[in-house]
Amino acid sequence: MPLAVRYTGARSLVAAQVDRRPPGPGEVEIAPAYTGICGTDLHVYHGDMDGRVHRPAVLGHETSGRVAAIGEGVTGLAAGDPVTVMPLRACDACAACRDGHQHICQALDFIGIDSAGSLQERWTVPVGVVVPLPRDVDLAAAALVEPTAVAVHDVRRAGVSHGDTVVVVGAGPIGVLIALLARRAGGSVLVVEPDAYRRDVVSRLGFRTVDPAREDPAAAAEGWTEGSGARVAFEVSGAEEGLATAVRVLGARGRLCLVAIHSRPRSIDLHRIFWRELTLVGARLYGREDFTEAVGLVHDGTVPADVLISAVVPLGSAAEAFAATESGRGVMKVLVRTGGAR
Amino acid sequence: MPLAVRYTGARSLVAAQVDRRPPGPGEVEIAPAYTGICGTDLHVYHGDMDGRVHRPAVLGHETSGRVAAIGEGVTGLAAGDPVTVMPLRACDACAACRDGHQHICQALDFIGIDSAGSLQERWTVPVGVVVPLPRDVDLAAAALVEPTAVAVHDVRRAGVSHGDTVVVVGAGPIGVLIALLARRAGGSVLVVEPDAYRRDVVSRLGFRTVDPAREDPAAAAEGWTEGSGARVAFEVSGAEEGLATAVRVLGARGRLCLVAIHSRPRSIDLHRIFWRELTLVGARLYGREDFTEAVGLVHDGTVPADVLISAVVPLGSAAEAFAATESGRGVMKVLVRTGGAR
Repeated sequence: MPLAVRYTGARSLVAAQVDRRPPGPGEVEIAPAYTGICGTDLHVYHGDMDGRVHRPAVLGHETSGRVAAIGEGVTGLAAGDPVTVMPLRACDACAACRDGHQHICQALDFIGIDSAGSLQERWTVPVGVVVPLPRDVDLAAAALVEPTAVAVHDVRRAGVSHGDTVVVVGAGPIGVLIALLARRAGGSVLVVEPDAYRRDVVSRLGFRTVDPAREDPAAAAEGWTEGSGARVAFEVSGAEEGLATAVRVLGARGRLCLVAIHSRPRSIDLHRIFWRELTLVGARLYGREDFTEAVGLVHDGTVPADVLISAVVPLGSAAEAFAATESGRGVMKVLVRTGGAR
Repeated sequence: MPLAVRYTGARSLVAAQVDRRPPGPGEVEIAPAYTGICGTDLHVYHGDMDGRVHRPAVLGHETSGRVAAIGEGVTGLAAGDPVTVMPLRACDACAACRDGHQHICQALDFIGIDSAGSLQERWTVPVGVVVPLPRDVDLAAAALVEPTAVAVHDVRRAGVSHGDTVVVVGAGPIGVLIALLARRAGGSVLVVEPDAYRRDVVSRLGFRTVDPAREDPAAAAEGWTEGSGARVAFEVSGAEEGLATAVRVLGARGRLCLVAIHSRPRSIDLHRIFWRELTLVGARLYGREDFTEAVGLVHDGTVPADVLISAVVPLGSAAEAFAATESGRGVMKVLVRTGGAR
């Protein structure tokens, strides 16, 4: 019987043997290889999303693996094929879907939160969410496709273009990916991050960094842009101070892309938004084109998997991956390795 | 000696005879006809902007009048010509100016706040800010050109297009002008306003209205848009509740145009901005193209001056115009009439 790690309530992850569910018509059974743990998983783990998450729940939505079996009517996939999953199932009926924005569907099924995710040895999903990977892809790196798609979407929403000065506030995995992709889009990038380990990672990738405990980020951005202020800022910290920083670093007509989740209402300097005619843009998840681009960026090595993956733990020790991600100290991305990695 | 009304400190306006200053080279002496009082004037009047305003100060920046005299080198204008003033003088050197956004110049001289305005019988200004009016223009209506330019700019910044559902929060003069111009751009408009008099004005102009004391504006917008939520919202109330309303009425990828001045930091639901991928756009003042368009809109009667102008008081009673505007009860725009109106 395959092993599954189940979230049963705040701070409780329980490993258990579960019945295998063979793929039905139009379904694919995947043997997950690697699963990344992200901030949203932590929100669930903390119990903050118990109103939404049906327990016991199998988490995991940053995934790579191999096809284990295919159900009736599934074509173009065979056992052993490397795959990832774009974990969104939209209703196709609500206003957002009708406008072509399926990723912000008002009744979105986010696989790994609203339905079972990849922290298990066998995972059955509808074929529509399965994304084939190149044969020679590194499966550990491929677990970064999903967060890379987030960053691709964010940089697209912010409209970063050649010559833009870009400030990224918060250098967790998503912040680092945004910095890399903003630079790839032609931007000059400055990263604001209080944690020394994360600043060091970012410096080694060739970015300027600011430690907000030692230097005022707005003054740093002002000097760096010769008084103009930045064109684009990404708020990836989730903290109120990070938000204030992202507003303060921008110059006239600057664009602030809101990436982090701020569950509580935040105080914000609207006068500056008015005064400088700033634009604030919310960015959530990704579209199909973002996800496809992310596969290519991981495959061609644009995404530095060796730098971003801090540790890999076995499925039975998944709780350690949550604990390490929660501490945030000395880690970027922690992966959980499952049977499919063998 | 011409009369001038001078702001000398919080809640103090003093009428005094002042020396006439003949126009120097490149200057135009105007005999102001009508001056509208706006929210920014009230901020000054309350003493909130004493750090910026050099006292004694002559306020007034929503103006119409006639040329009284021209200085050396001024061409194309003659005594008696009807004119208005676009009251912005940019430095042409800062980052905003270099990018072509002179109206958000970091060293902007806003005439009527940073330098002398039109609440006087003779007003000398640089020719560059003088905007000729059609000969047959109604000078009282022409005092609405400046606030109309604000609304033109706001509707442009929000990108209102045909078929958009638009919610305007706050139906002061700017809110009403925005509603009119959003409808002209092809939008369907709903106006949220707690004051019965203002709601009545808006209804008579053919708009749907919601009294937020009786009906939840978000529920009203939801019903009105058949569950989609609005495409565009304008925050023109300046109140924290108004801001919350403007965020709550929007559907997926909706755009919130921030028009009102929020001097203090405000609490805002960033989660919804993220979740629905909303865009928040700051909009301030206007560009030359907005101002030129506004002259046409006032001249062709698109701007219903008879509905918007609630009262006209003589220059010597300017304080009454401030008091009436401050109360907000039963008034839209109050004008001060000066000698040039005769």
